[in-house]
Amino acid sequence: MPSSPSDLAPSRSPPGAEAAARPGYRLVVEEPLALDCGISFGPYTIAYQTYGRLNAARSNAVLVCHALTGDQYVAEPHPVTGKPGWWETMVGAGKVLDTERYFLICANVLGGCMGSSGPMESDPATGKPWGLSFPVITVADMVRAQTRLIDHLGIETLFCVIGGSMGGMQVLQWAASYPERVFAAVPIATAARHSAQNIAFHEVGRQAIMADPDWCQGNYLERGVRPERGLAVARMAAHITYLSEQALHRKFGRNLQDRSALTYGFDADFQVENYLRHQGITFVERFDANSYLYITRACDYFDLAAEYGGALANAFRGTRTRFCSISFTSDWLYPTSENRAIVHALNAVAANVSFVEIATDKGHDAFLLDEPEFFATLRGFLDGCARHRGLETP
Amino acid sequence: MPSSPSDLAPSRSPPGAEAAARPGYRLVVEEPLALDCGISFGPYTIAYQTYGRLNAARSNAVLVCHALTGDQYVAEPHPVTGKPGWWETMVGAGKVLDTERYFLICANVLGGCMGSSGPMESDPATGKPWGLSFPVITVADMVRAQTRLIDHLGIETLFCVIGGSMGGMQVLQWAASYPERVFAAVPIATAARHSAQNIAFHEVGRQAIMADPDWCQGNYLERGVRPERGLAVARMAAHITYLSEQALHRKFGRNLQDRSALTYGFDADFQVENYLRHQGITFVERFDANSYLYITRACDYFDLAAEYGGALANAFRGTRTRFCSISFTSDWLYPTSENRAIVHALNAVAANVSFVEIATDKGHDAFLLDEPEFFATLRGFLDGCARHRGLETP
Repeated sequence: MPSSPSDLAPSRSPPGAEAAARPGYRLVVEEPLALDCGISFGPYTIAYQTYGRLNAARSNAVLVCHALTGDQYVAEPHPVTGKPGWWETMVGAGKVLDTERYFLICANVLGGCMGSSGPMESDPATGKPWGLSFPVITVADMVRAQTRLIDHLGIETLFCVIGGSMGGMQVLQWAASYPERVFAAVPIATAARHSAQNIAFHEVGRQAIMADPDWCQGNYLERGVRPERGLAVARMAAHITYLSEQALHRKFGRNLQDRSALTYGFDADFQVENYLRHQGITFVERFDANSYLYITRACDYFDLAAEYGGALANAFRGTRTRFCSISFTSDWLYPTSENRAIVHALNAVAANVSFVEIATDKGHDAFLLDEPEFFATLRGFLDGCARHRGLETP
Repeated sequence: MPSSPSDLAPSRSPPGAEAAARPGYRLVVEEPLALDCGISFGPYTIAYQTYGRLNAARSNAVLVCHALTGDQYVAEPHPVTGKPGWWETMVGAGKVLDTERYFLICANVLGGCMGSSGPMESDPATGKPWGLSFPVITVADMVRAQTRLIDHLGIETLFCVIGGSMGGMQVLQWAASYPERVFAAVPIATAARHSAQNIAFHEVGRQAIMADPDWCQGNYLERGVRPERGLAVARMAAHITYLSEQALHRKFGRNLQDRSALTYGFDADFQVENYLRHQGITFVERFDANSYLYITRACDYFDLAAEYGGALANAFRGTRTRFCSISFTSDWLYPTSENRAIVHALNAVAANVSFVEIATDKGHDAFLLDEPEFFATLRGFLDGCARHRGLETP
């Protein structure tokens, strides 16, 4: 079981030092993984957390796929920040992803920085952090690694694979590559391919990191520094895309921060400036800059149709997986049109698919927030699937 | 007349050295300007260009207000980059802003970096570049300074004040503060106040600049360096907001840059990455980082209604100016809703206002591009105003 966050080193120490102290499970896979880039990679580590109990029939496992800057601490305090798990609204006893009913698994993605093999970890060949010598990974690689974890846990077929944003990309990849292992799939607020605008925003973030002299061409860990300023700017730019204009207006508008008049300077006069700066500062405490490069790259490279001759429908031909696709009206990062394209492809192969667009002004981040209609939709879908899967009610 | 760009120092030399060599007019105003921040500022310089001839009645003057990163080189090669003027589609003999008919004036804004007083210029008190000791200026300050130029040119009433984006803010400020001096006003793709999302994007850009160690707390010119990496990142982030998702998709999609397959690295695999990097690199050749801080701040501070008791309509009460407000369907930086708010305020005081939303997928930048319906709209409006103003057809 996870130890308490207070056992951990202070968050600002070099992340390498913390990694060993991070609570949770580690699976070391000896057999190399054939990566999309052509490299045979291994041994490698998958860090993961589980919640609930696997039933005797091994039929109640739910794989939660995390988003770009998420991790495996879905429903427990984060070991670095001490903040609640990123999906505690959704996951827990009696919640939509009910830990009394389902066995939940979440693995830090390959390339991540919370214990799975990634650029922050040491290359066994050199004993030094991988840095940019870590191979570029794809969403398919992430999913390929996850199959080894699911094998290890003795699970043949996952009851459900679920995730939002980049997590949703993994869901789609699972359903396309391993249809027989996915009973139900819930891609949320996602896309079957990364758009030009999304690539552009990611490129800004990468350039912000690489522009920081403390990035040291990726070798900052060896030098005992971190490109914190660049990473904070990357996070700030990205964070704007996670919120809708309406949400920003509702939350902040042009309200001033702890002052009654403009100061005619470059301090954070406006609440929205203060909020963004805070987002940047807190992010660098828990995230590795090189991981940010690798994981954004994996998103950019994602283009599921391209893997299937250019027609997305081919990715799902013959599938028996039950799909529930969910989008949010004010999400401009992965707008409803992108989610609808997935549904059209599924319809084209007569797949079993529900599609719900949730009305909300909360933007892309709505999938992480308390959205009653979203929860009700998911609960209904999962209940139906559970009945078909023969899972008893808790 | 402007000298040829080849007369200038190479573009990568310190910008201070170039300023003196930049072609065009300079007006030095001895009488100090009462700035919104409370400082009495002066003497100060206004650098400007003109096109066409002022008629005997001095009734054909059009003031063009430039956007955030624009300048006074509206319709001639830029002295630093050698590229065409930023509005050559619109301004010239026989064009919509017809230099055979109108006398066009465009001044570099206060706080700018193309010859008007700004943080790059020298503080007479110290002989050193102002840097962050330059006072924070507002859109109203920019317009206040422009009135001195118009006085100097002997023009009582401008036939038209026109501009897009931050230029449109200046148009609104002119019409509100000096209604008797503005016969016609054309605010394009703009807003009467900067939204929380717009402030957020500007703050990201400022943080990118300030995160660059070569920014040196604003004193980079004295140190002989420039925060080029930070400024390039700021430009890249901003540039995404100038284009629509559709335009990026149409222009670039997921097309690869000079390669047939992904390279599994962090080079610019995608055309959109290469394009953004190019935007960043070319921008730093012609723009001063501190000016970027000051001018984005001026935009953030813009809130015309706040100057008039919180009701935008009050800004225009009793106006006799003829307005033409223009927005673009795919502009998400200054969406139609923001432009419509201006029109509603004008309607509330029974002002003479036309409002046209142009259907285009080109995003905010559409106001700089060849958009036939936009041009036709403007031509029609200006022709009508010219008849009422008694301007003969050329």
